[in-house]
Amino acid sequence: MSKNVLILPGDGIGPEIVEQAKRVLELVNEQYSLGLEFTEALVGGAAIDADGIPLPEATLDAAKKADAILLGAVGGPKWDAIPDFQIRPEKGLLGIRSNLGLFGNLRPAILYPQLAHASSLKPEIVSGLDILIVRELTGGIYFGQPRGVRVKEGGVREGYNTYVYDENEIRRIGRVAFEAARQRGKKLCSVDKANVLEVTVLWREIMDDLAKEYPDVELSHMYVDNAAMQLVRAPKQFDVMVTGNMFGDILSDAAAMLTGSIGMLPSASLDVNGKGMYEPCHGSAPDIAGQGKANPLATILSVAMMLRYSLNEGDTADKIEAAVSQVLDQNLRTVDIMSDGMTVVTTAQMGDAVVAAL
Amino acid sequence: MSKNVLILPGDGIGPEIVEQAKRVLELVNEQYSLGLEFTEALVGGAAIDADGIPLPEATLDAAKKADAILLGAVGGPKWDAIPDFQIRPEKGLLGIRSNLGLFGNLRPAILYPQLAHASSLKPEIVSGLDILIVRELTGGIYFGQPRGVRVKEGGVREGYNTYVYDENEIRRIGRVAFEAARQRGKKLCSVDKANVLEVTVLWREIMDDLAKEYPDVELSHMYVDNAAMQLVRAPKQFDVMVTGNMFGDILSDAAAMLTGSIGMLPSASLDVNGKGMYEPCHGSAPDIAGQGKANPLATILSVAMMLRYSLNEGDTADKIEAAVSQVLDQNLRTVDIMSDGMTVVTTAQMGDAVVAAL
Ligand SMILES: CC(C)[C@H](C(=O)O)[C@@H](O)C(=O)O
Ligand SMILES: CC(C)[C@H](C(=O)O)[C@@H](O)C(=O)O
Repeated sequence: MSKNVLILPGDGIGPEIVEQAKRVLELVNEQYSLGLEFTEALVGGAAIDADGIPLPEATLDAAKKADAILLGAVGGPKWDAIPDFQIRPEKGLLGIRSNLGLFGNLRPAILYPQLAHASSLKPEIVSGLDILIVRELTGGIYFGQPRGVRVKEGGVREGYNTYVYDENEIRRIGRVAFEAARQRGKKLCSVDKANVLEVTVLWREIMDDLAKEYPDVELSHMYVDNAAMQLVRAPKQFDVMVTGNMFGDILSDAAAMLTGSIGMLPSASLDVNGKGMYEPCHGSAPDIAGQGKANPLATILSVAMMLRYSLNEGDTADKIEAAVSQVLDQNLRTVDIMSDGMTVVTTAQMGDAVVAAL
Repeated sequence: MSKNVLILPGDGIGPEIVEQAKRVLELVNEQYSLGLEFTEALVGGAAIDADGIPLPEATLDAAKKADAILLGAVGGPKWDAIPDFQIRPEKGLLGIRSNLGLFGNLRPAILYPQLAHASSLKPEIVSGLDILIVRELTGGIYFGQPRGVRVKEGGVREGYNTYVYDENEIRRIGRVAFEAARQRGKKLCSVDKANVLEVTVLWREIMDDLAKEYPDVELSHMYVDNAAMQLVRAPKQFDVMVTGNMFGDILSDAAAMLTGSIGMLPSASLDVNGKGMYEPCHGSAPDIAGQGKANPLATILSVAMMLRYSLNEGDTADKIEAAVSQVLDQNLRTVDIMSDGMTVVTTAQMGDAVVAAL
């Protein structure tokens, strides 16, 4: 039975990195007769330009029908000036996450040994770094109601958002994190602000509750401010971290940057059935779009995650990851991860190298 | 006319670090005839132990009457098990901030040249680091209503908090930040999540508005996830950063940890008239309390900030800061900032050294 992969190139460097990732996916599709079929659609700024909205119905339909989705990136200054808050590239991304129930966001922060020098941290602090951040992606303050800007008595405007989680949402993401920890180092750190925010008091309670079902996993709790500090001070103390949408946004980006090579980091956003959207951790980098400078490896590694989590092709995922490691061993580098003695390559040349390695 | 300084030792290492800071304050009070008088009161866990609540009325009254407040730190595992969310050490701190209207939190992240090695970041990334984070401290999600845990239809519990700011609150903290930037490097970065949260769309609008009054200050905007990354990647790009209560909590701790010497960092929390509470950036460190290991320098530097911002004694503040730099030059180090070839000293010995230097 054939499976459908929806490709969403998006904005900025999105199209060029997705192009290389698609080559890799097409290659393994042939090599291993995976039976994948591809469709493509517009999202984000590209969709605003074509259809006036960031998530056209056709795109949402295609996303619902697909078995897995590969996304480049969305956003750019071009669309920042649009006054309507609903007509923003980001709303396309948020709309897919929410409409498809992609609540489980997996963000690995891995430091490739070949790129140890790239980090702004001292080598001994980050060498061998391998953290998985599990971020809740369809709830919390991102989607909480009520929200908006209202006029108070006296004519003063006030902006407001609601940070809300119910037990079920917390338990659902908690399970994803405990399961992931069980497959890894068996250590889970739940991040909250339970000394100030009631919503995270509930979060902590449910995590404690779940821990009884996972006696093999060691659960700890950490306040978000301390977690941000500990990531800077001694990131290798962490195995899996789990947190809500907003804290996860901040901490996963900080963790990614610890590696100094965010151009290497993929991510997965999964629904209850393991269907998912896959995208690089980095953004659309409009400043370098179209110049062949972008690093396609995070997107190629996102393809590997897709094969592993949504398409049940873990062996093929391993092969792609090995191919990426191999091109690094060949000293090939896009500019973002360039260093002395290495060979600079373009986006397409990096794609060529991975294809050759496969 | 005499001025009153309220001393709140608090919990954990609070009493021992405050003791040294008080010695310094008493000394300069005599040396320069500052006319300061001291009172002392309980807050946090110490107040829970004595009076059952974290902010007794007598403490709040004394705080209101004082011209400035010196706080050690609050909190510890001893009080974590209390089921009533209102009976927590942190509520004492939050209660003073809120009741006294201490909305303007100044958190410098400065790397002392003598301690450059202490950072987990590479020296070239952090040497000379000097950032000021201006955090709004009496609003945002910390104090927003409604909040709590409620039972939804079907018996499912849901926790919720409200992230809210009105124009006046934003403008007020914005001015503090623009004024600070004007006195420093004339660069202000406002941190928000305006691509997702309506409350921060208003925040951004007001900051843009204020910028017209400060043409000499260069205002930029950054999303909070990117700000967390940029702090790790290249922190020296920042001069002054301004943000809300929750983002400020996270980013100021991350920024402090970039220095690797959080035991050196003071903070100020100011009201509209410049009255303020001063405290170290670090916490109550219950694990080392009572052992003479704590670094009193952040609290001593908080005294310097107090003299500068609330007591109009900037020259005396300079002298204290010079004395701290001098003891570092004498190679004296508490354990938290210890390194090869330096001399370990206790909390009290560090206090002695600063007193001697003065
Ligand atoms: C683009 C933006 C809405 C998004 C988010 O905040 O979730 C991004 O930062 C991410 O982390 O995927
Ligand atoms: C103790 C806690 C309530 C407090 C806060 O979150 O504001 C602390 O982390 C701080 O930053 O001063």
